[in-house]
Amino acid sequence: MLDTYVLRLGHRPERDKRVTTHVALTARAFGAKGIFVSTKDEELENNVRSVVDRFGGDFQITTGIKWKPFLKEFDGTSVHLTMYGTHVDDAIPLIKDVATRKMLIVVGAEKVPPDVYQWATFNVGMGNQPHSEVAALAVFLDRFFQGEGLRRDMDGNMKILPCERGKKVVNDTQ
Amino acid sequence: MLDTYVLRLGHRPERDKRVTTHVALTARAFGAKGIFVSTKDEELENNVRSVVDRFGGDFQITTGIKWKPFLKEFDGTSVHLTMYGTHVDDAIPLIKDVATRKMLIVVGAEKVPPDVYQWATFNVGMGNQPHSEVAALAVFLDRFFQGEGLRRDMDGNMKILPCERGKKVVNDTQ
Repeated sequence: MLDTYVLRLGHRPERDKRVTTHVALTARAFGAKGIFVSTKDEELENNVRSVVDRFGGDFQITTGIKWKPFLKEFDGTSVHLTMYGTHVDDAIPLIKDVATRKMLIVVGAEKVPPDVYQWATFNVGMGNQPHSEVAALAVFLDRFFQGEGLRRDMDGNMKILPCERGKKVVNDTQ
Repeated sequence: MLDTYVLRLGHRPERDKRVTTHVALTARAFGAKGIFVSTKDEELENNVRSVVDRFGGDFQITTGIKWKPFLKEFDGTSVHLTMYGTHVDDAIPLIKDVATRKMLIVVGAEKVPPDVYQWATFNVGMGNQPHSEVAALAVFLDRFFQGEGLRRDMDGNMKILPCERGKKVVNDTQ
C-alpha cells in the first residue's frame, strides 16, 4: 500500500476533540500510516496512542505542526478532500496515475484557507454535498486501497474476532 | 436504491452534537432517506433541515423516538454497525440476499445495549478495529449502493459544481 498520511487543519481542541479523534482513528483503520494535526493537543495524542498500544500497528500522531510549509513542500501527492472538488469517481484514476511515492490527504475542520486549494495536487469531492470529513476520509481511503485497509491484521495485544452476535475479544496482556 | 434509514442510539445533545450531525449528513449524502435519533434534539433537527432546504432532496429527520419497539418491530432488514460484527467483506453479500424491502442501519454513540446485538438482523464490522460510526456508516452505504449515493443529483436551490481548484456554487434563490 502507498505510504499515506493525513493532515488535519483547523483543529480546535475544545470544539473538535471528538471529531478529530474520529478522523485519526479512521485514518489508522483504513490504511494511513500517520496523522499530522495543525494545533498542539496532548490529550488527543494520548488518546490515539492508547488505541495503537492496545490494538496494534505503528500508526503515528504528531500535533502542533507548521502546516503551511509542511503542505507546500510535501514530497509526494497531496489530496485535499472538499465538497467543491473534482468528483471522486473522476479523481481516483487521475490520482493513481501520479501518486507513486507518498500521499498526503488534507481534511479541514471548517473553512479551509484558500491556499490549500492551490497547493494541493488534487482537490477531491466525495460527492458535492455537505457531509463530514470523517466520512470523506473513510470512503476515499476505502476506494483508493480497494478495501485493503480493512483487511489488514494489526497484530495488537487486543484483537476483536468477527462475530454474528455479541462480542469476541482476545486480550494477550491478560 | 433500497429504502434505507438510519437509527442513531445514545445521542447526548451536548456531547454528541457535532458527531450526530456528521452521522445525519453522511446518511443523506450516501443515499439514506432519513434518520431517527433516540433523544429529542430540536437544534439537531433544525441544522439538518436547513441543509436539506438549501441543498435539496427529501431527507427526513425525527428525534426523540422510542427506539426499542422501533428496532424490534422494524418491517425490513436491520444492520447494526459495530466493530465486533461480521466483517463487511463477508456481510454485504448476505445482506443483499435478504434486504429486499427496507433497511435500517443502527449506529450507537458509545456503548450499545446488548439487546441491539440480538434484535438486529445483522451485526456488521467495518473491519474489526475501533474508529468511527461516521466512517462506518459512510463506507457501508458507499459499498452497499456501489457509489450510487454520491452520484445522485439532489436538485437543491444551492448546487456545488465539481471544480479542480476553488469553489463553484450555483444558488437559484439569489
